[in-house]
Amino acid sequence: MKSSRLICTACGKEYSDECFRCECGEPLEVVIEMKRTVKIRSQRPGILESFSDFLPGLEDKNFLSLGEGFTPLTRLDDKDSSGMELYAKNESINPTWSFKDRGSYLAVLDAIRRGYNHIGTVSTGNMAASVAAYGKRAGLKTTILVSDSIPDEKVSPISIYGSRIIKVTGDYGQLYYDSLEAGKNSGIYFANSDVPMRVEGSKTIAFEIFIQLGERVPDFVIVPTSSGGNVRGIEKGFRELRDSKLSVSIPRMIVAQAAGCSPIDLAFSSRASTITRFHNPKTIAHSIENPFPPSGNAVLRMLKRNGGATVAIDESSILKAQKSLANNGLFVQPASAVAYAAISKLREEIDVRKALVVVVLTGSGLKYPAILKEHPSFIESTSLEFLEEILKGNQNFID
Amino acid sequence: MKSSRLICTACGKEYSDECFRCECGEPLEVVIEMKRTVKIRSQRPGILESFSDFLPGLEDKNFLSLGEGFTPLTRLDDKDSSGMELYAKNESINPTWSFKDRGSYLAVLDAIRRGYNHIGTVSTGNMAASVAAYGKRAGLKTTILVSDSIPDEKVSPISIYGSRIIKVTGDYGQLYYDSLEAGKNSGIYFANSDVPMRVEGSKTIAFEIFIQLGERVPDFVIVPTSSGGNVRGIEKGFRELRDSKLSVSIPRMIVAQAAGCSPIDLAFSSRASTITRFHNPKTIAHSIENPFPPSGNAVLRMLKRNGGATVAIDESSILKAQKSLANNGLFVQPASAVAYAAISKLREEIDVRKALVVVVLTGSGLKYPAILKEHPSFIESTSLEFLEEILKGNQNFID
Repeated sequence: MKSSRLICTACGKEYSDECFRCECGEPLEVVIEMKRTVKIRSQRPGILESFSDFLPGLEDKNFLSLGEGFTPLTRLDDKDSSGMELYAKNESINPTWSFKDRGSYLAVLDAIRRGYNHIGTVSTGNMAASVAAYGKRAGLKTTILVSDSIPDEKVSPISIYGSRIIKVTGDYGQLYYDSLEAGKNSGIYFANSDVPMRVEGSKTIAFEIFIQLGERVPDFVIVPTSSGGNVRGIEKGFRELRDSKLSVSIPRMIVAQAAGCSPIDLAFSSRASTITRFHNPKTIAHSIENPFPPSGNAVLRMLKRNGGATVAIDESSILKAQKSLANNGLFVQPASAVAYAAISKLREEIDVRKALVVVVLTGSGLKYPAILKEHPSFIESTSLEFLEEILKGNQNFID
Repeated sequence: MKSSRLICTACGKEYSDECFRCECGEPLEVVIEMKRTVKIRSQRPGILESFSDFLPGLEDKNFLSLGEGFTPLTRLDDKDSSGMELYAKNESINPTWSFKDRGSYLAVLDAIRRGYNHIGTVSTGNMAASVAAYGKRAGLKTTILVSDSIPDEKVSPISIYGSRIIKVTGDYGQLYYDSLEAGKNSGIYFANSDVPMRVEGSKTIAFEIFIQLGERVPDFVIVPTSSGGNVRGIEKGFRELRDSKLSVSIPRMIVAQAAGCSPIDLAFSSRASTITRFHNPKTIAHSIENPFPPSGNAVLRMLKRNGGATVAIDESSILKAQKSLANNGLFVQPASAVAYAAISKLREEIDVRKALVVVVLTGSGLKYPAILKEHPSFIESTSLEFLEEILKGNQNFID
């Protein structure tokens, strides 16, 4: 282990590395003993440069990138000691703090290549903020269509990016289809939830997982699923890796939904080949609360081919999973917690012992601060005078 | 440019790439024509592996990493066309969405190496969440000391990580010093704002900028400054690059403060060698609202040696800069907007034409959602029936 010294930034006094400030009151700093040759390595890669062989032809406008993708793959403990090797793909570390940025970037480049000067989407959450950010940055006219029931606190983190926002009354599910049609007639590229470029964007999640695991393919990949575009993309990515002979297998895909809105799980469980609209959806996992997902049938076809499965998670398990992930340093939105909660459910149905499992955490917990009220905080109080005493007490470590 | 085809995921019908869904109603997807040899490149690097030659000896516990660092360096337009080459170092894309994660990770490793089983910090914002996340993940007892005036909405995103939180009445500035002392006596490693490992963490920002610019050194680096630990670390990083002969110069460091709390700017402007406590601080840039920064004097010494400068920004310019960055796709907390606003101020005092400038954006805009109320949203309304009409109208594109 390298030795290091501490030196005062003011008086220059040297210290062994056991304290933080000098006796003179000023801060200490580390002195690095330079070796004769030093090197620094590595540049942050971009998804376009890294995966160009696997992506369609796109406009080469790298300056429009915000640094999407190449999110961390974080090791998680297997608390049940079943020998499972478990990782979280943390998509909250993206420019607008969700996985949507991958597809939004590709969609903007695709729109420009095709001569569009106007981009849009239908969303009240992650995708709205993402398209607003990328569209504006690219200098495109940008229109976000939202449901007329959207609360103010969800509009403001979208409108900050400066796009046009239109509340639309009427069936929100129908708005997906009507916007594509209206876009075709009015020259607007609607980068909705499961359009081809979004699926291409999600593919890059699979490529990164494969690289980050040292060119291994997981046994299971668990994906919080709403429209179905993301899980389709991740499966497609692994399939293309195998088809190009870079890998020899494909993970089984696990579609995780909230029990309060689980149209794909219901259809899959009843062996139906098409989904049915889910009535009266209600879940804290708002960002996957789509009662009639436009890629629902495509996901059912994918699962059949893939040997995958679906899981539906109740509300209290979602909250518990959110807290448990936070205790591992990962504060995610409830939709992402659904994927983590799916592991316990999966154990009941499938032998996952010694399996290599990746859960996809789709967005940041900061996206939905209202949920924090569901997690009680216990806060102690003291005064400066009694600080040391209370610290020595060492009580109240919460789990 | 590569050709790509679209194919229906259900019926298999092929399309030229000009639509999003098949006539049969199901989604289309891209078919990639595989070349004979394909390759995928690049792994997301970590700061420890990449910069080990420049960091002190630390415990080799990479599994405790959450993927901190290697944040994007994003190109920004030079709106004034002075030929400035301008970049933003976007530290909001970190595991707890601020630059603090670099130092928290190193501090946790340092604490473990030294045999501590308990870590803490004094903070009500970014650093509190960061230490809570990393401390908990490492299985250390974790204690966060906060001011007794902290509002609930700031406590909950800290307490979600599960650490012990103690409100302390009395002088909050004194708490910095008292906690270090109490920590020494009770075996707690207090990773406060400017301790040596935080400065080491911030150094890695300099290394990354250097690499991301293709081994060039900026002329100016602008850093929102509160305690002073971050700007000290970034300068130290560039200094070590030069001392190790990897570069030949050091950027001039620009310390950006809110005019509503600018103790370093006041001292620097009056050529004082020590700072004076700033009375009645008041700014929307809460995370840099430290009236008596513990590295204030060290920053003054650094600026003198470095040839740097200070800038103080008024509240309305902070808001304007926040909006302007959002229009470039970067939604940052007000403290980060201070650094961007500093550019205009700098132009008045220093010739920055044709300069290579980097602004450090320290944290995510989602950290402080209350600020969104200061940016009015204009929202239109329509019904499904009139959707196409209003879209063709193309009105109301906000800037």
